[in-house]
Amino acid sequence: MSTIAIVGLGLIGGSLGLDFTRQGHRVLGISRRLETAEAAIALAAVAQAGTELALVAEADVVFLCTPIDQMVGTARLMRPYLRQGTVVTDVGSVKQIIVEEITALWPDFVGGHPMAGKAEAGLAAAQGNLFRHRPYVITPTAQTQARPLAVLTDLVQQLGAEICQCHPHAHDLAVAWISHLPVMVSSSLIQACQQEPDEAILALAQTLASSGFQDTSRVGGGVPELGTLMARYNRPALLSSLESYQQQLQQLIHLIQAQDWQGLEQYLAAAQLARSAYLP
Amino acid sequence: MSTIAIVGLGLIGGSLGLDFTRQGHRVLGISRRLETAEAAIALAAVAQAGTELALVAEADVVFLCTPIDQMVGTARLMRPYLRQGTVVTDVGSVKQIIVEEITALWPDFVGGHPMAGKAEAGLAAAQGNLFRHRPYVITPTAQTQARPLAVLTDLVQQLGAEICQCHPHAHDLAVAWISHLPVMVSSSLIQACQQEPDEAILALAQTLASSGFQDTSRVGGGVPELGTLMARYNRPALLSSLESYQQQLQQLIHLIQAQDWQGLEQYLAAAQLARSAYLP
Repeated sequence: MSTIAIVGLGLIGGSLGLDFTRQGHRVLGISRRLETAEAAIALAAVAQAGTELALVAEADVVFLCTPIDQMVGTARLMRPYLRQGTVVTDVGSVKQIIVEEITALWPDFVGGHPMAGKAEAGLAAAQGNLFRHRPYVITPTAQTQARPLAVLTDLVQQLGAEICQCHPHAHDLAVAWISHLPVMVSSSLIQACQQEPDEAILALAQTLASSGFQDTSRVGGGVPELGTLMARYNRPALLSSLESYQQQLQQLIHLIQAQDWQGLEQYLAAAQLARSAYLP
Repeated sequence: MSTIAIVGLGLIGGSLGLDFTRQGHRVLGISRRLETAEAAIALAAVAQAGTELALVAEADVVFLCTPIDQMVGTARLMRPYLRQGTVVTDVGSVKQIIVEEITALWPDFVGGHPMAGKAEAGLAAAQGNLFRHRPYVITPTAQTQARPLAVLTDLVQQLGAEICQCHPHAHDLAVAWISHLPVMVSSSLIQACQQEPDEAILALAQTLASSGFQDTSRVGGGVPELGTLMARYNRPALLSSLESYQQQLQQLIHLIQAQDWQGLEQYLAAAQLARSAYLP
């Protein structure tokens, strides 16, 4: 059994705390707000909690669970308190930049990204078994030592997650396609509809919108801060996937302009066929 | 109680038959395939059924429930059998072209579009109360007489649907935004992901795809024939909404290229705020 410090007690940090506590580990929680730290104790997500990064001195393993723009800064601030040999990991949805910068600060770092989420955010949404049967990406590099990788792998297995190991850059390219690009595609759909100049038509469109529109626009209606962080920290990969998307869209528009209905049906049939590979 | 003929016994035709039969109407079914006609009788969706359009001679009201590319042709073929005064309507997802052409054939025509659907198609998917609490668009024009409009309105009320009356052109503009554009946006997303040149990255993307990708790609993975018919019969409105969409997407790409993170967050916040108006 290990002592595990969780820095950032939101949905992911809180859910990790619930699982690791139940597995018998001693879990310490660190939050910027004292009331969040106290709430985490009340939920039995952590055994002990506070607002001081110095708490990590007791930890064998530290999970950084802050928003991605605070990962590196938090790592820098907690570094003076870390014991030699403590394994540090993060749960950020972007890996390349974070892994590079934190590895430079602390060699016993291994990046991670649990692909689990909920519509709700924050500690109140935390739940046990959130990671069970879900992909958990672990991103070692050529510099990663065997021991920290083994420590993290063992803990992630205890969550019941399905481990997926790849290079941080490969992770970022993959999530640009299936996570970050959909947010941009989906928000642009909402913004395009809003351009309808006739108020009566716009109101009619809003009345008639049903599950098809709601599904397609769901991730575009997500938290703006998260979408912005995705773009900011995965910019080259996202721009490259957006460029490919524009080309595909243009190709489809050409088919409709040319009234090439056989070509359009083939395009849509290829999309239908391809989609199944992205389903569980 | 009326005698209602339903031409085309798929999901919509079959579901209308179940509801109208239960309301006490005499429902006649017409299908191109004898086994579909017989299946509709077995399901109690119709009292009587066959493959001959001559059956419409007995009807007070005819619902055309064929695919949209067969609506006008079917109307033309059944016209010789229609009794003076019979009200004809259709359930096509595009209205302007259909309403113009069938009104020219049969003045007692009123276009309609029940906004109800399921992932499954065909008579086997038919169910009672499919239209209950769902929008049912009725599209009279300046030429529409009061009597056929009143007859259709009364029947649609019996389905428990929420009637939404507008001009056929207004309908087509509205559904271009919330139904046809999402199909194109969503299929292009799938096709863009498929352009990833590195097979290992593509496989990783497919493994990591979760509910966000699945929701955004759902309507793009729909029946290719349906998407093609939408584009074919609502081409000007769809092309106009696609153009607006391209502009919005380009604006978002500019924000990311310029690293204007405040601008991007405002863009995404506007999308998030706007979306609520499209929810039930």
